Parts: sequence; C-alpha cells; structure tokens
Amino acid sequence: MLRLSVLALTVSMSVAAFAAPQKNEPIQPIEPAVVTNQAKVELGKQLFFDPRLSKSGFISCNSCHNLSMGGSDNLPSSIGHNWQEGPINSPTVLNSSLNLAQFWDGRAADLKEQAGGPIANPMEMGFTHDLAVDVLASIPQYVQSFKEVYKADKITIDEVTDAIAEFEKTLVTPNAPFDKWLKGDEAALSADAKAGYKLFKDVGCTACHNGPAVGGNSFQKMGVVEAYETNNPAEGVAGLTGDDLDRFKFKVPTLRNVELTYPYFHDGAYWNLEEAVDVMARLQLGRKLEKEEIAQITVFLKSLTGEQPSFTMPILPPSTAATPRPQPFVK
Amino acid sequence: MLRLSVLALTVSMSVAAFAAPQKNEPIQPIEPAVVTNQAKVELGKQLFFDPRLSKSGFISCNSCHNLSMGGSDNLPSSIGHNWQEGPINSPTVLNSSLNLAQFWDGRAADLKEQAGGPIANPMEMGFTHDLAVDVLASIPQYVQSFKEVYKADKITIDEVTDAIAEFEKTLVTPNAPFDKWLKGDEAALSADAKAGYKLFKDVGCTACHNGPAVGGNSFQKMGVVEAYETNNPAEGVAGLTGDDLDRFKFKVPTLRNVELTYPYFHDGAYWNLEEAVDVMARLQLGRKLEKEEIAQITVFLKSLTGEQPSFTMPILPPSTAATPRPQPFVK
Repeated sequence: MLRLSVLALTVSMSVAAFAAPQKNEPIQPIEPAVVTNQAKVELGKQLFFDPRLSKSGFISCNSCHNLSMGGSDNLPSSIGHNWQEGPINSPTVLNSSLNLAQFWDGRAADLKEQAGGPIANPMEMGFTHDLAVDVLASIPQYVQSFKEVYKADKITIDEVTDAIAEFEKTLVTPNAPFDKWLKGDEAALSADAKAGYKLFKDVGCTACHNGPAVGGNSFQKMGVVEAYETNNPAEGVAGLTGDDLDRFKFKVPTLRNVELTYPYFHDGAYWNLEEAVDVMARLQLGRKLEKEEIAQITVFLKSLTGEQPSFTMPILPPSTAATPRPQPFVK
Repeated sequence: MLRLSVLALTVSMSVAAFAAPQKNEPIQPIEPAVVTNQAKVELGKQLFFDPRLSKSGFISCNSCHNLSMGGSDNLPSSIGHNWQEGPINSPTVLNSSLNLAQFWDGRAADLKEQAGGPIANPMEMGFTHDLAVDVLASIPQYVQSFKEVYKADKITIDEVTDAIAEFEKTLVTPNAPFDKWLKGDEAALSADAKAGYKLFKDVGCTACHNGPAVGGNSFQKMGVVEAYETNNPAEGVAGLTGDDLDRFKFKVPTLRNVELTYPYFHDGAYWNLEEAVDVMARLQLGRKLEKEEIAQITVFLKSLTGEQPSFTMPILPPSTAATPRPQPFVK
C-alpha cells in the first residue's frame, strides 16, 4: 500500500513537472550541426576515411572512430600500426566538438589539433605529417579539392587537420529520446527512463555529467571516494602538468550514445553499462546503488542515443605513380 | 605525310564504325543491379561492414574490400588478424558477381561460398563460423533482421554469407565512359581511348579480357609466352587440382575500375597500370608494345571506371552483455 501510494505520488509529480518543455535541467539537447562550408566537410570526410594517411595504408580515422559503431572501435584500447596495442580507450568522435579539449588528458585544445595526433603517433597510424601531405599532394583530385576549399596551391597539414575537424563537427547526434523529452514530448521517455534520470540527478551524477554532451566539459579525478583499480598506467592530466594533484584526472567522457561506446572508462575495462554505473556511483559518489536503481539509470542512459550521422560513404581518389607507397610490413 | 594519312584513315574509319551503338564488341556494358530484396541487401551491408565477424573485432569485409577504394585495399597483399601478411592480392569486390568463380584460384563457386572464407581464415579475420553466428545471435536487432529476411528463428552461417553475397551483388559499376560509348555516345571516349581500345583488341587482350566484366570469366596461365617472375608462392588452380597443367593458372581478373584496384596481379607487384599493360603484352601475348601504345591502352582502361556504389554508411546494432567479446590481442 505504502509502495503504491509513493509510486502514485511520483507519477503525479512527474506529470506536473514534465508537462511543458523542461527548462532548468542540467542537460540540454544536442542541436543539429550547421554546415557553412559543404566542400570542406566533404573533403574532411574523405580524409577521415582515407587509410593513406597511415604508414600502412590500412588505418584511417574511421578505423578507431568507426561511424558505424558509435564513433568508437568498441575495443578496450585500439589496434595501431603493426597491431600495436594502444595505451588507452579510443573516445567517441560523436559530439566531440562539444568537448572542452580533446584526448582523455585534454592535451589537444580542439578537434583540429587532435586530428594531427594519431597520424604521427608511431603506435597509431605510424606516419608523419610530411609524408601524409606528400601522399595527398600526389593525387590530383585532392590537390584540386584543397585548392577549392583553401584557395592555396600547396597542401599543408594545417589544412588537412582543419578539414577533418570540419567534418567531425558535423558528427553530432540530435533527437535522442531524452532530447525529445527535454523539448516537451512526454511520451519520448518511459517511466523507467524518467525515474533513472531523477536518480541520475539525485545521486549526483550530473555534478560532472551535464551540459549538452552530458560530460566532456570538465576534468575530474577517476576515483574520488575510492581508488579505481586498473593495470592501465595512464596518469591523466598529471602526465602533462607533472602535478601530483592531477594524477588520474581525466576529461569526463560524454554520455551521449553511451549505449554504443562500450567498453567503458579510460582503460575500457567494463563492457556492461550497468557495471559502469555501479562503479561510478561507488568510486566517485560513495554510493552503493541498488540493482533496480542501476537498471533505471541504465534505461535513462540509453535514452541518450541520438540520431547517428547519416551520410554517403565517400569515394576516395586513386593514387598515382607519384604517390608514396604504403608500407604495411615495414616496422 | 604517310603518318598523317594513316591517322586520317583511322579517324574516318572510327567515325564510320562508331556512329551507332556498338553491336559486336567483345566487351558488353555493365548493367545496374536489380534489387529484389532490399531488406536482405541492407542486412548484408551491415554484415559487410561489421568487424565483429572477426576475432579481433577490428577487421570487416570492407577492411580488404574497401568500397571507398575500388572495392580493394590497394595493398600488394592484405593485412589479416594480428597484422599477418596475406598470401595474395585482395581482388576487388566490385562487379565480382560477374566472375565465373571466386578467389584467384576459383575455389569458391560463388559469392556466398566466398564470404565464408575470410571469416574463418586464421590469416584473415581469424574467427570461426560458429563464433561469428554466436556474436550475431547475441544482438537483438540482428536476430530481428535475420528473422524478417529468412523467416527462421535461428541465425546460420548460411544466412550470414547469403546476405553478404546479396549486398555484394549490388556492387556493380555501370555507366563507365566506355559503356556510354558502347551504347552510342561517341563523345564519351577520347580519341586516345578509342585508339587504345582498338589496340587492346588488335594485340589480343580481349582473348581473355572480354565480357561485361572485361575478365573474370576464365582461368588462364600467368606467363604464357614468358614466365612471370615473382616471389609469391601461389600456384593457382594447381593448388586445388594437383594437376601440373594448372600451375600458375589464375582467374583472369576483371579490368573494370582497374584504375582504382592497384597494385596489380595476384602478387600485387605492379603499381602502375602502364607497367601492368607492358608485362601482360609481353608475357601473355609475346608482344613488346611501344610506349605510346601502352599509353593509349591505359587511357582506354581508365575509361572502364564506372559509377562507384553509392550508399549510406550502415549503422551497426550494439553488442549486449551476452555478446562474446572481441579478442584482438589473443593470438
């Protein structure tokens, strides 16, 4: 009886609270991308899919930020040149334009700076910026596209990463059920999702996971109340600052499309969203959640899956006799 | 003077011969695919792009038959599980439905049989058919799609490869300049392309490279007049039959989109189309072509680049707690 009346109260409160567009929520809707330079976006899309930006001719941006798979590779850590095991989980490229900085430790200020990283990282694409530019400059259709977009005769790595970033800015995922609910569509969320969202706020998750990306806008220590146990040696921001206070401080990942971006955390150690919720509540908030609470929060989190980027697979211009050849088996 | 008059004669003959649709040519146009089961094609497209059909969760059909790159990987031989070096050049999937059999040695009768090969090949996707089916059966959206397409409750490898093959059958490339010319558009080919085509026939290339796919419809010995020098140990059809007469007999590759499918031959040893033309003429036909002849044939060959498949990048359904996890770093 008591249970029933509590439930009834919750429902009536929900109806009262959610009848109009939600105004003062800690999470805001994702807005569709506004494309101002379609030619640059198209060029960036080609580059994003072009494995010739890697030494092997086999690995493209899309290899580890697979747009068929939530903009990630769904592996604990990525596979790089010569099948090297990457040091950290590959973050989703979806909605990454909303991040305050890029990489887990924020060492790149923006998407453009980020895009240059993997190309030249010996453990990732294993190439150099000069060689990547040499490849592109040997392909007349690329030369033409760069000329049209950048009004310059010479391709530079600055332009390459700028175009990739411009494409990546289009990779937002609007119209998630949660966003529809935020905009006033009461039926867009199930009762469990609504209850999960309430818990998500009440428990304190929104302290870090807030804003349109439900994260991505601050650095926080992984393991506040309790230490996070991992074999992964990554130290987070401390690796850049050398400051002991920054140890295990990482950029808070976006929870947008979190249903698609398993496995979770910087070490990719947790495959199930329920487990990840449990770990976060305990380690960050000192709260041991009940199974049913975890289930409801998980239902809410799945309502953050938005419309995935929909685009035509790019066709890449062919190499020429002048194009430096890929070297897949040269270490 | 003599040269000029020969040229004039050629031109006037060309005009006379090419005024109407070409009737009795050894090459026929590629026709657009007729899709009778769109749901099956869509399912096949997802599977073609799904790296979860590999042990690593990293390699999909599209990794080595990249539809952004002429349906090939543009590498001498492919990169397989754990970065293993494949034994042979990855043939293009474009127009592969027109082949009389699949693989260089024709060991698979059709696309469906072919599709099962790389999944279970330890050097390629490194998985097993059972595990691939287990992965798919753990994903509700796949279970639903298979149920809709095959009217059965249980996913089988037979259905998996059938759906992949159905998608691959759509990967034809109609409306190449050469096809437009075949259909009567005189302006679709340059004078050099027409001269190159005439040479292509006169020299004897069409003995093997004929039909809509300009190849793919017979097995021939590599190195008829002169032996082909290579370090590649592949023996071709002899590997299947044990018959010494079948040594170095390979399926004649299609020349459709040959501009995009470098490097050439079963060992991927030649990157430039001009060199490949020279080698073929010498080794197969005993003919040392002049540089200009090679150039003209190459121009003709580039007129075989058709409309590349244009489709929306598939979005893959997420794994669940029940999905067997990828094992990228287990050998």
